Amino acid sequence: MKADDTFTTDIGWSTANSITVFGMDFPSEILGSLNLGDMAFLELTGRVPDANESRMFNAMVVTLVEHGLTPSTLAARLTYLGAPEALQAAVAAGLSGLGSVFVGSVEGSAKMLYEAFAKDDSEPLSTIAARVVADFDARKQIIPGIGHPFHKPIDPRTPRLIQLAEETGFRRKHVDLVLQISATAEKKKGKELPVNATGILGALCCEMGFDWKICRGLGVMARAVGIVGHLLEESRNPIARKLWLETEERATRHLREATGNGTVEE
Amino acid sequence: MKADDTFTTDIGWSTANSITVFGMDFPSEILGSLNLGDMAFLELTGRVPDANESRMFNAMVVTLVEHGLTPSTLAARLTYLGAPEALQAAVAAGLSGLGSVFVGSVEGSAKMLYEAFAKDDSEPLSTIAARVVADFDARKQIIPGIGHPFHKPIDPRTPRLIQLAEETGFRRKHVDLVLQISATAEKKKGKELPVNATGILGALCCEMGFDWKICRGLGVMARAVGIVGHLLEESRNPIARKLWLETEERATRHLREATGNGTVEE
Amino acid sequence: MKADDTFTTDIGWSTANSITVFGMDFPSEILGSLNLGDMAFLELTGRVPDANESRMFNAMVVTLVEHGLTPSTLAARLTYLGAPEALQAAVAAGLSGLGSVFVGSVEGSAKMLYEAFAKDDSEPLSTIAARVVADFDARKQIIPGIGHPFHKPIDPRTPRLIQLAEETGFRRKHVDLVLQISATAEKKKGKELPVNATGILGALCCEMGFDWKICRGLGVMARAVGIVGHLLEESRNPIARKLWLETEERATRHLREATGNGTVEE
Amino acid sequence: MKADDTFTTDIGWSTANSITVFGMDFPSEILGSLNLGDMAFLELTGRVPDANESRMFNAMVVTLVEHGLTPSTLAARLTYLGAPEALQAAVAAGLSGLGSVFVGSVEGSAKMLYEAFAKDDSEPLSTIAARVVADFDARKQIIPGIGHPFHKPIDPRTPRLIQLAEETGFRRKHVDLVLQISATAEKKKGKELPVNATGILGALCCEMGFDWKICRGLGVMARAVGIVGHLLEESRNPIARKLWLETEERATRHLREATGNGTVEE
Repeated sequence: MKADDTFTTDIGWSTANSITVFGMDFPSEILGSLNLGDMAFLELTGRVPDANESRMFNAMVVTLVEHGLTPSTLAARLTYLGAPEALQAAVAAGLSGLGSVFVGSVEGSAKMLYEAFAKDDSEPLSTIAARVVADFDARKQIIPGIGHPFHKPIDPRTPRLIQLAEETGFRRKHVDLVLQISATAEKKKGKELPVNATGILGALCCEMGFDWKICRGLGVMARAVGIVGHLLEESRNPIARKLWLETEERATRHLREATGNGTVEE
Repeated sequence: MKADDTFTTDIGWSTANSITVFGMDFPSEILGSLNLGDMAFLELTGRVPDANESRMFNAMVVTLVEHGLTPSTLAARLTYLGAPEALQAAVAAGLSGLGSVFVGSVEGSAKMLYEAFAKDDSEPLSTIAARVVADFDARKQIIPGIGHPFHKPIDPRTPRLIQLAEETGFRRKHVDLVLQISATAEKKKGKELPVNATGILGALCCEMGFDWKICRGLGVMARAVGIVGHLLEESRNPIARKLWLETEERATRHLREATGNGTVEE
Repeated sequence: MKADDTFTTDIGWSTANSITVFGMDFPSEILGSLNLGDMAFLELTGRVPDANESRMFNAMVVTLVEHGLTPSTLAARLTYLGAPEALQAAVAAGLSGLGSVFVGSVEGSAKMLYEAFAKDDSEPLSTIAARVVADFDARKQIIPGIGHPFHKPIDPRTPRLIQLAEETGFRRKHVDLVLQISATAEKKKGKELPVNATGILGALCCEMGFDWKICRGLGVMARAVGIVGHLLEESRNPIARKLWLETEERATRHLREATGNGTVEE
Repeated sequence: MKADDTFTTDIGWSTANSITVFGMDFPSEILGSLNLGDMAFLELTGRVPDANESRMFNAMVVTLVEHGLTPSTLAARLTYLGAPEALQAAVAAGLSGLGSVFVGSVEGSAKMLYEAFAKDDSEPLSTIAARVVADFDARKQIIPGIGHPFHKPIDPRTPRLIQLAEETGFRRKHVDLVLQISATAEKKKGKELPVNATGILGALCCEMGFDWKICRGLGVMARAVGIVGHLLEESRNPIARKLWLETEERATRHLREATGNGTVEE
């Protein structure tokens, strides 16, 4: 059947007594051999990582798991308050906001670095970096992956990720370029613009050959892990109800004060 | 084809020059004739409401549209902060928490009322109500749809919905029973337990013959309308970023104070 | 408190015995007076629609409620299969895909029309339309809101929506421009490119003064209504399980055939 | 401030030059030391797993990552079709259906095993198992975690997970009980009812001391990883559009055949 030739998945399938995932026997070749990060690498590349890839990739995803009380974990906690019987819906709500503003900068960094080399691969890094900075300035766009509102002078995750990249053989041209872009931008603008965690992660996605479009997927899978942790804490030490009631009272105070006393309702 | 006999939808279909929805010609018979609530009624029943049904049903769904800053609208706003380019994801996040805790009481009320009559339809309402209250007490369960944490002595929506039910011919036995249950419970427990909006809505769902399992659907579709309104306000007068940053600072203060100064990061 | 001046909502609030929405007493001024579409209009504009606005706006949203078995309603049905106890999560899943590909063309049309007049409002429509078509051609972009893969020669919803616009006084310059753009493009390209439903809806959003960024919201709230209808049908005449099992079997056939017989698992 | 004493998170916080997660210095103590499964274990328990815990826990989550074309991955693919720019929304849609029907059986198994020992811990396993089976029979409920529609006579993941449990010291009383329950049920009912993957995973969650309410969280985080893999495949070898168009045509054929030819629309 011609039509069905293109209606296929190659990821997983099974028979009555076997389960195959990416061409491997799942029970004997994957279970007990691959950790969760390795399994994620397998999902993204179709092959098992070697020891260096495993170490680097696990560190990359682990970086994205936990960021404390973010808009995303707050949305998940508020959702859990209304539907504690549907934990999956609370995780889904938390993931829904991982868009252009926060997690998007990993893909922004990867895209910038890929495109910089695609345009001209032969020039010295300093020339390429200068061109990238000039291009972003000309378009009045913020350079993704450099600068951080709180972590100054440096993002503490960046040197550690670079160290791991060196140990595993992933400090290559994309990592060097993002560092060069940071240095160039700092000099040009006269202020601290260190490579932040999303900048170095974007570079490492390039070193691993990931399509920039899938970078967001790393953040999404990692945050799913972190959000489950926050929901467990919420179930033991809830803050969502109080946050809601206080917020409603506070944000409607100007209306209630104009007419007399009142209170919050649901 | 035998198999396909059960693989069907009867809701909508189209040809190159026609669109049919629930057996009606969509452009000529629905567009311009049905308002949005009527269209929702058509989705739930497969037929166009008459004038009384239209008035009552529209009031029922309108009741559920707007409840101010709820956990649901806050989750939507926090999601929009991270992904303003994906408004649909913010609405989805807001809807995800419409579970057992808040909207669930409409279906709880409808289920209780259906089951009360299913058990024995011939007794006087006062007897049925006494039995319902006793059963919930015996199971140490809260009776759905009566009592309200803020709206005391009465929920201001309840008398208006009852008035509309009278005007449209929907004040029937389920409405009467929920009122009787409230009166019985108040007498037995010696405190105010008025029928709240979800209690009367559950009764009205019964009067309209809706399966109690679909009651939640009324709340979900109505809140989708309200959440879009909140996202529009959020786009003009944002509160999510401030809410997030303050909440993180406040909830981690005890950790930062133990070690010295610090600040919030994302 | 200075800070709280900007931490406000003006949509809704309540006291023990009153509920106020957009400055109106909810029970007496909204319940029983506004239909669901009117309530949606109130959410988007902060005011009650007049009779013409009510008729036109209700028709606009109703247009977007039901499109049969779309990717969106299929995703909702497949979600419901796994979590029938969480109807809200199935609706959320169905809404999540209302992005750039389908519903996005309403906002694309509105944006195009707003920008066309913003650039130069004084020229004749034919000149503006020619400029718009030339601009899209130069950028090799598809003009949003014109052409339809199935509805040929015309989208049957378009003439009805135009008729309603005429009856309600909303056939104004944006409606005329989108028709002119269609005519210009048809002439230039020598093929049928009729204004489709999303094109006329985008124009009507402009006539109503809606921000183009909120156009997607109309589609999202409308589809929430339609998805609930599909989930009700799914609960009575399920297709999701069969769709899943057949799809898995079919898409993995090439793998199983390569190794011997097998069957689907979950 | 008294109120704030209970408004706290202990998971993560940061200063300008440090990031702390579960009391550990994130860059130096977690990055490069913990794999993604270890990080998930940290989220669930607040501590780093030892070598045996790491191996067993990683295998448990890895078991849940990939199940081929499930309702969940199909919902994600269909969502991606409409909003490819919002990958996170497609993952969220896919997770939304991980409710009572599929992933729920892990928590069902864990709950059953915890409750069996809570009732009476002193009896021999065979007695406890007989009581559990009799209780489920009396309630006409299906025993969670045993039997499988396709994997017969055994689920190939089960012996491997038991082997790993033995190697890591996690074959303890809950694992033994679920095996005993399976044997008892098989004898009583005269048919194959092997412990399936969810049954053994539920038992292992008990051995690790996880609250049964958080078991679903393991499935949710694991599937987030798998869904990203499916979306990557969908972006390269799409099936969602074809699945949609064929399904609509097929499911509305009976309507179109009744009136003449027609075609699908969106």
